[in-house]
Amino acid sequence: MNLDSFFVKSALIPAIVQEADTREVLMLAYMNRESLQKTLDTGYTWFWSRSRQELWNKGAVSGHLQRVKDLYYDCDEDTLLVMVRQTGAACHTGHHSCFYRRLEGESFGE
Amino acid sequence: MNLDSFFVKSALIPAIVQEADTREVLMLAYMNRESLQKTLDTGYTWFWSRSRQELWNKGAVSGHLQRVKDLYYDCDEDTLLVMVRQTGAACHTGHHSCFYRRLEGESFGE
Repeated sequence: MNLDSFFVKSALIPAIVQEADTREVLMLAYMNRESLQKTLDTGYTWFWSRSRQELWNKGAVSGHLQRVKDLYYDCDEDTLLVMVRQTGAACHTGHHSCFYRRLEGESFGE
Repeated sequence: MNLDSFFVKSALIPAIVQEADTREVLMLAYMNRESLQKTLDTGYTWFWSRSRQELWNKGAVSGHLQRVKDLYYDCDEDTLLVMVRQTGAACHTGHHSCFYRRLEGESFGE
């Protein structure tokens, strides 16, 4: 697989991060070509921070690293799914997942 | 929750779609304000198709609808996680999930 093919349409593609064992979705972040390469080379997740405009080794500061177990890509080759083993919390708020809030007031039936 | 808050930074935000029962990640698509509202109103997923530039009721043509069971949003309020019950295949290739290909040639330890 030529990694360039992921970045034909856009220099940044979304990467869904999922806990390998429980399948809990932890977060979504963005990868460019370089962060994907560093993820593959190191076995830990690297992203491109859109707010700070820099490469970002998830957990390098907090210690909450994500060890990559598997990496999948979708049919359109413009989204990644990264299966990880998360150390500590994925979310900067301290929650294990960034998706800790449910959209309230909505009923979706059975 | 004011839905507008999701669209402050961008008119389109990624929505991860996950099978409610098995927690398999099925696909990622994009929602604008109107598609999110229609998803909430109907209980089935609606997206904004970036390629066709139109609202898209997932499964309206194929019959492979996604019944929404729950909807979460992340800490930054710029990504949605939609828990669904998928009818048939989520992927237009016939695979249940769009993430049916593993990035080959990579070893992630263990």
